[in-house]
Amino acid sequence: MPAPADPKNLSTRQKMEALIRRKQAEIVKALETQDDVKFRADTWTRGNDGGGGTSMVIQNGTTYEKGGCNVSVVYGQLSPEAVSAMKHDHKNLDLPTDPKTGLPAADGVKFFACGLSMVIHPHNPHAPTTHLNYRYFETWNPDGTPQTWWFGGGADLTPSYLYEEDAEMFHKLHKDALDKYDDKLYPRFKKWADEYYMITHRGETRGIGGTFFDDYNEKDPEEMLKIVEDSFDAWISAYIPIVAKRKDMPFTEEQKQWQAVRRGRYVEFNIMYDRGTQFGLRTPGSRIESIMMTLPVHASWLYDYHAAPGSHEEELIKVTTTPREWVK
Amino acid sequence: MPAPADPKNLSTRQKMEALIRRKQAEIVKALETQDDVKFRADTWTRGNDGGGGTSMVIQNGTTYEKGGCNVSVVYGQLSPEAVSAMKHDHKNLDLPTDPKTGLPAADGVKFFACGLSMVIHPHNPHAPTTHLNYRYFETWNPDGTPQTWWFGGGADLTPSYLYEEDAEMFHKLHKDALDKYDDKLYPRFKKWADEYYMITHRGETRGIGGTFFDDYNEKDPEEMLKIVEDSFDAWISAYIPIVAKRKDMPFTEEQKQWQAVRRGRYVEFNIMYDRGTQFGLRTPGSRIESIMMTLPVHASWLYDYHAAPGSHEEELIKVTTTPREWVK
Repeated sequence: MPAPADPKNLSTRQKMEALIRRKQAEIVKALETQDDVKFRADTWTRGNDGGGGTSMVIQNGTTYEKGGCNVSVVYGQLSPEAVSAMKHDHKNLDLPTDPKTGLPAADGVKFFACGLSMVIHPHNPHAPTTHLNYRYFETWNPDGTPQTWWFGGGADLTPSYLYEEDAEMFHKLHKDALDKYDDKLYPRFKKWADEYYMITHRGETRGIGGTFFDDYNEKDPEEMLKIVEDSFDAWISAYIPIVAKRKDMPFTEEQKQWQAVRRGRYVEFNIMYDRGTQFGLRTPGSRIESIMMTLPVHASWLYDYHAAPGSHEEELIKVTTTPREWVK
Repeated sequence: MPAPADPKNLSTRQKMEALIRRKQAEIVKALETQDDVKFRADTWTRGNDGGGGTSMVIQNGTTYEKGGCNVSVVYGQLSPEAVSAMKHDHKNLDLPTDPKTGLPAADGVKFFACGLSMVIHPHNPHAPTTHLNYRYFETWNPDGTPQTWWFGGGADLTPSYLYEEDAEMFHKLHKDALDKYDDKLYPRFKKWADEYYMITHRGETRGIGGTFFDDYNEKDPEEMLKIVEDSFDAWISAYIPIVAKRKDMPFTEEQKQWQAVRRGRYVEFNIMYDRGTQFGLRTPGSRIESIMMTLPVHASWLYDYHAAPGSHEEELIKVTTTPREWVK
């Protein structure tokens, strides 16, 4: 099925797609400066459904145990079930009724979505896992009239061991990127991240947070594209020095075990709560390998395992149970 | 809050609770014959909510990498959200409306649930993971009148490497246990297991199946208690000889890696689909360690990793993608 055409939004879509493809190349290049192994590309299409993507992946690198940086551009129909499931987070998304029958329209809502989604799991337990995602979404009613659009995304850091200076720098650079446009954005997106990255059943966030926003269309799309571009750059400027500093630190078997337990928490968050994963698993023709690419090579669940009081491990638990303000 | 009292069902509850406590002891004793390490007991209560349980757990045994056999007895109120979520699988469960307002009753539905739930993950990749759960559930309307009751549960086997004789024996003994009462049960519960243990987004079952049933109240509770007891015994008779035969088989690093990947699938099933996990995570005051006890010490996700054509690994994939009849 061809992408639905709507002249007003076409250019935002095209610009966002061009932006994420450019940023994919820049991110991969920046990450590769810290590893002797190169990322490899996998291009995929959705078969009979519309769209496809390019996954850039690395596994068993010298620095990165596993990582991927995916671009996907998908379009087609959202089923009534998908609309119901997404409605909670997207207030203007609506399932139109068939004017003849008064029942939910069987042909659902047409959508276009494109985004870049990245997760990096380094080997070294002192080097944090990181995630970044920016996406753009549009929907149309069955009669072809535009329904709604939004941007969403953010970036966050998931250390196994807390280095306050890394957390502060990561947050500071993301704040600077947003402050350029509107100094109300960082406080709002930082708080949103603390809420979003919460592993509810554990009462812990998955890491030290970062930024998150969704269903966002309060600003002009042109300005949003700039905000997203600067946020991409903030992540590059923050993460590359962090991984460079941490990737060769000595570590023990016990520290590696702790990392595996923390990555178990990461798995719990990603497959239970992550909206991208939920959307992917509900979208017909999605590529399961690209969705599950975010999951680590080693994850562990130990029975009734707790950080020792006063330990470095406990320091991390404290900031995941009580999110901190990293930028004063 | 004391357990709601209803003379008619009290004895079924008491008998089921006694049965699962007795079977917990027998199962642990049988499993311990194959390990040099003993299970240890953790007793817990739900705090201000009603009930508690006893977890018998083992970690880093000589045969069992991790395993647990939990008894839990919980009672209290199901929230309107929990009732809505469970309604799909439990046709007679209903959220009464407040007669004054016509809105869903704020004090929800009173419930009692008890069950034994067990998962064993051996070290050796030739020895299968196994799961067993039998549970009994009752609900009351806010005015104290009984609403519904049911039994549920089953047992299944999740090998990393297929041994047809193990799968056949496991199914045969469960079939024999059910055939004693009604020869329509095994075919129905076997098919139900093939559907229930499906990892939908992968198009694979988690193992070679077994039995599963839920929301079952077609037989007299007294007969159900006997069926459940014989099913417990069938599992003991099937699994102990299998683990005895497989636990010391030689294996390679690659086979251990394959096992970790299969355990990643186990994690996906348990935290995305398993009804016990979903119920536990939704029940206030549940003990997270006992719910997550089912997750393995080692799980792995490798990007785009597939079994080689003609390999032993592929043999397993074939039976998980096309469930087989194990008893002719």
